[in-house]
Amino acid sequence: MTQILEARKGNTTRQMRRVAEKEGVSVEQIAEGLVKGTVVIPANRYHANLDPVAIGTGLRTKVNANIGTSTYFPDIERELDKLRLAVEAGADAVMDLSTGSGLDIDRSRRRIMAAATVAVGTVPIYQVTIEAIEKRGSIVEMTPEDMFEVIERQAKDGVDFMTVHSGITLESIARLQKQGRVTDIVSRGGSFLTGWILHQGKENPLYDQFDRLLEIAQEYDVTISLGDGLRPGSLADATDRAQIQELIILGELVDRAREAGVQVMVEGPGHVPFDQIEANIKIQKTLAKGAPFYVLGPLVTDVAPGYDHITSAIGGTLAAVAGADFLCYVTPAEHLGLPTPEDVREGVVAARIAAHAADLVKGVKGAWEWDLAMAKARKALDWDKQIALAIDPVKARRYRKERNPEGIVECTMCGKYCAMKIVAEHLGKPMEVC
Amino acid sequence: MTQILEARKGNTTRQMRRVAEKEGVSVEQIAEGLVKGTVVIPANRYHANLDPVAIGTGLRTKVNANIGTSTYFPDIERELDKLRLAVEAGADAVMDLSTGSGLDIDRSRRRIMAAATVAVGTVPIYQVTIEAIEKRGSIVEMTPEDMFEVIERQAKDGVDFMTVHSGITLESIARLQKQGRVTDIVSRGGSFLTGWILHQGKENPLYDQFDRLLEIAQEYDVTISLGDGLRPGSLADATDRAQIQELIILGELVDRAREAGVQVMVEGPGHVPFDQIEANIKIQKTLAKGAPFYVLGPLVTDVAPGYDHITSAIGGTLAAVAGADFLCYVTPAEHLGLPTPEDVREGVVAARIAAHAADLVKGVKGAWEWDLAMAKARKALDWDKQIALAIDPVKARRYRKERNPEGIVECTMCGKYCAMKIVAEHLGKPMEVC
Repeated sequence: MTQILEARKGNTTRQMRRVAEKEGVSVEQIAEGLVKGTVVIPANRYHANLDPVAIGTGLRTKVNANIGTSTYFPDIERELDKLRLAVEAGADAVMDLSTGSGLDIDRSRRRIMAAATVAVGTVPIYQVTIEAIEKRGSIVEMTPEDMFEVIERQAKDGVDFMTVHSGITLESIARLQKQGRVTDIVSRGGSFLTGWILHQGKENPLYDQFDRLLEIAQEYDVTISLGDGLRPGSLADATDRAQIQELIILGELVDRAREAGVQVMVEGPGHVPFDQIEANIKIQKTLAKGAPFYVLGPLVTDVAPGYDHITSAIGGTLAAVAGADFLCYVTPAEHLGLPTPEDVREGVVAARIAAHAADLVKGVKGAWEWDLAMAKARKALDWDKQIALAIDPVKARRYRKERNPEGIVECTMCGKYCAMKIVAEHLGKPMEVC
Repeated sequence: MTQILEARKGNTTRQMRRVAEKEGVSVEQIAEGLVKGTVVIPANRYHANLDPVAIGTGLRTKVNANIGTSTYFPDIERELDKLRLAVEAGADAVMDLSTGSGLDIDRSRRRIMAAATVAVGTVPIYQVTIEAIEKRGSIVEMTPEDMFEVIERQAKDGVDFMTVHSGITLESIARLQKQGRVTDIVSRGGSFLTGWILHQGKENPLYDQFDRLLEIAQEYDVTISLGDGLRPGSLADATDRAQIQELIILGELVDRAREAGVQVMVEGPGHVPFDQIEANIKIQKTLAKGAPFYVLGPLVTDVAPGYDHITSAIGGTLAAVAGADFLCYVTPAEHLGLPTPEDVREGVVAARIAAHAADLVKGVKGAWEWDLAMAKARKALDWDKQIALAIDPVKARRYRKERNPEGIVECTMCGKYCAMKIVAEHLGKPMEVC
C-alpha cells in the first residue's frame, strides 16, 4: 500500500513517524497532509537505504539537486561524487537525469540508488528516448510499450519519484502553437514528447494511458511528479496560455492520481518575472487542489548565465514564501554546460538559502531559532560557533581563514574598529569573548 | 549652486543632461525629480572626471561597491584594483571606507577620487575617529571641530556623497536601550558616535549642528546620505522601535536638507526577514517624503556567511521592487573578513542581478529588451551573442569554455538531446544556427 492509502486507513507507517520526527511535528499532521494530498513522502518500497523526507504544506521547504551523466560527460564516478557533495551540502533529494548512452543508464541509476539515503527521482522518458534511438533509430519511433517498460524497470529499482510530462497533449501543443513563443519548449522531456506527438499525430501515451502509469506508481509507491513540459524558458514566455493550459490538465491528473491512491506533486517554472511569481504559486495551489508544488527556480531574469543559482534563489525565496514546497536547485553552470562538483555545492547551498529564508516567514519549526543562535554568536564574536552554525561551514571556515591573520578576535573588515566591540564597551555589556 | 537649486530655478545642468541621456528619459523628468527630492545626482563640483548617475524614482536601480583599506590590509594598490574591477563589473558608485591608519586615509581617498569616473562616497566619521585616536588617544575624545574639519576636507577633495549618522541622538539611543536588542549596533559609524555620545553625555554634533553640515554640503554640492546607525544587525532586531525612531529623525533631517537646497538620500537596513522588507521600504518613503532610499542588502537570513551576496540579492530584489533606489553590494566575505578583488566582482554582479530583476518589474527603460534579446540568442543557440549579452561576459565565457568541448553547437547539459534543437525540428522553425 502507498503512504496515502495507509494514511486513509488511519495507519501510521515508519516513514510517517520518521518524517514527523525530523520535522518536529506530530505524526497526525503528516497523516492528515497525506490524506488531503497536500503532503507526499517519496519512498519507493524498494529503496532500502532511504531516510525519507516529507514535502508539502506546513513543512520545511525541501531542496533537490540534479545529477547524472550526459553525452559528453558519461563518467558515473563524477556523478557519484556530486551525489555525495549534494547530500553533504544539505540536499533533501537528488534526481538522476543521466543521458549517458544505453545500458549505462541502468547501471548509473543502480549505483546512485545504492548510494543514496535521500529520495531519488528520475525522468524516465530520457531513458526511453535514448533506448529508442539505439533500438529504433529515432526518438519519434519510441512506442508506448517502451515508455511503460522503462517506467516499471525504474520503479523496480526503487526510484522514489518520477517526472512524467503527461500534460503535453494534443490540446496543450495546439495552444502552444496558437500562443507563439520566444523560446518554445525548453524542457527536454517536453521536447521529446512534443516531437513524438507531432510526428505520430497521436495523443501522448503518458496522458492517454495515465491509468497504466498509476498502476505502476501504486504498486511500488512511486510519487508522481507531474512535469511542466511547457514551462517558460524566458521571461517573455512566462505565465502564458500554453503554460496555464498544461497546468489545468495537470490539475485534472492530480485528481486521478489521488483517486488511485497514488502520491502526486506538480512541477512549475522556470523563467518568471518577480512580480508574476506569487500568481504562479497561487494558481497552482487552486488548479491542483493543494498538491505539493516543486519549482525549478524560478529564475527572475534571463541575462545572468554564470549566476543562475542567484537568479533562482531570488525567485525561489518568493515562490516558497507564496507556498512552493520543493525547490529544484539551479547551479551557476545553468545555460552554459553540465555542472562541476563545485557548481553542485554552490547550487545546493543557494537553494537552501532560498528555502530557509522562506521558512523563516512560513513559521517553520526551528527556522527562527537558527538565525537567533547565529546572531548571538556574532554578537559574542564567537567564531567557532558562527562557523558551526553556518549553512555551509566548509566555506565559512575557509573564508575566515583566508581573509584574516591568525588569532585576531574581530575580523579584517573593520579590524580594531569593530562596532561589536565598541558598543559592548559603551553600552556596558561586556562581550562574552575578548 | 547644487543640482537641486539649479533645477528649482528651471536651469538644466550638464549633469542633468548626461544622466537623462544615460537613462533614456527627458531632462525634464530628471529636473522634476530633483525639485521634488525624489532624485539625486551625487556630483561634487570638484570631482573633475566624474561621469554622473542619477539615483531615484523612475530610474534604473543603482549599485554601490564598498572598497577601502583596513587595519590589517592597508595596501591602497589592492583597493585601486577593486575599484577597477567594481567599475568593470558595472558598479554605479563606490564608497571609500578606508580605515588604514592616519594620513594614508587622505592619500587613499585622493588616489581613488583621481581614478574614479563613478560617484565616490565616504563615511567621514571613520577618518575623524582614526585621527582622534592618533591625536587625542581615543575615539571618545574627538571634538565637533574634528568632525566638521574632516567633512570639509573630504568635500574639497571632491567626494560626491557622504554618509552621516545624524540620526544617532540622545533620543534614539534611549529608545535603543529601552528596546533591548540581540546585536545592538553593527554600524561602525553608529558605534563610534554612540560611544562618543554616551561617554560625553552630549548630543551628536552631526545632529546638533546639522546646519553646519548643510552649509558644507551646499557649497560643494555633496549629496548627504543619512546613515542608519541603528540598522538591525540580525533578523531578531529588524524593524524595531530603535530603527524606526532613527528613521523618523532622518525624515525630519530630509526636510531640513531640502530647505537648504542640499541633495539628500536615506540609508536603510540591513538584516530583515523577507516578509518585513516591503514595509521597510514603504515606511521610509512616507517618513522621508520620497527621498531616494539606499539599502544595504537587505539580508534575508543571518545563517549564510560566505553567501551573503546571495542573501542580499534576494532581499535587494524585493526592496528595489518595493521602491528602493540604490543597492549597496554585499560580498561573499561579509561577516568573515575584508573582501578580495574576486569577492568584489561577485558582490557587484549579485547586486546588479537584484537591481535588474527589480527594474524588469519597475518598467525601467530597456530592462525588458535586454532579457528578450538574451532569450532570442538562447533560442538560436547563438553563443557569442549570449556571452555578449550576459551580465558578466567574463564569467559566462569562462564557464562555457571550461564545461564544453570545443565546437559543439548545443551545451553539455543536454548534449545531443537539446530541447531547443528537437523542438525547432518538429515545430517547423529551423534554427538560426546549426
